[in-house]
Amino acid sequence: MSGFRHVVVFRWRDDATAEQRKAVEDRLAELPGLIPELKAYAFGHDAGVNAGNFDFAVVADFADRDAYLAYRDDPRHRAIIDEFINPITAERHAVQYVLEP
Amino acid sequence: MSGFRHVVVFRWRDDATAEQRKAVEDRLAELPGLIPELKAYAFGHDAGVNAGNFDFAVVADFADRDAYLAYRDDPRHRAIIDEFINPITAERHAVQYVLEP
Repeated sequence: MSGFRHVVVFRWRDDATAEQRKAVEDRLAELPGLIPELKAYAFGHDAGVNAGNFDFAVVADFADRDAYLAYRDDPRHRAIIDEFINPITAERHAVQYVLEP
Repeated sequence: MSGFRHVVVFRWRDDATAEQRKAVEDRLAELPGLIPELKAYAFGHDAGVNAGNFDFAVVADFADRDAYLAYRDDPRHRAIIDEFINPITAERHAVQYVLEP
């Protein structure tokens, strides 16, 4: 499918609790109902297959770059980042790329 | 869709050439024709929207964890990692997670 994809991986702080990790997933799960630009949205915690992995990943697909920017800057998304994600984030790396048809 | 997703992001070495970066994409593009476990496969170089991003991301979807392991360990995949990816990789972080239906 064509479009624009946002990929981000997180390493949580060692002192992040199970409740804090679950709260991130619970809050992110609300966003597809709030931000219509989110064409596909799938996130999850690492399955534990490989040593050295990060803890959590989000993949979000949009029609185009502008739709991604609407998600990135949506105040309901920013509030989740500020209140739930940033407090437990040790490391974060992201890439956005064009999805070829 | 349900399944099992592999997400990996890379920061390339500063001395990685455009030819080396393109070779990674060209070689990875061969894998869906070789590894039938790859249900969906989309990779790309960072679009340059956000400062501080990594350089390259791969998202690969599988029916289940075993199908992912077949891809991970396929010698044609490993050869691309050894010959094209590792030589230009400065940093790499991955997550695998279950895709909920």
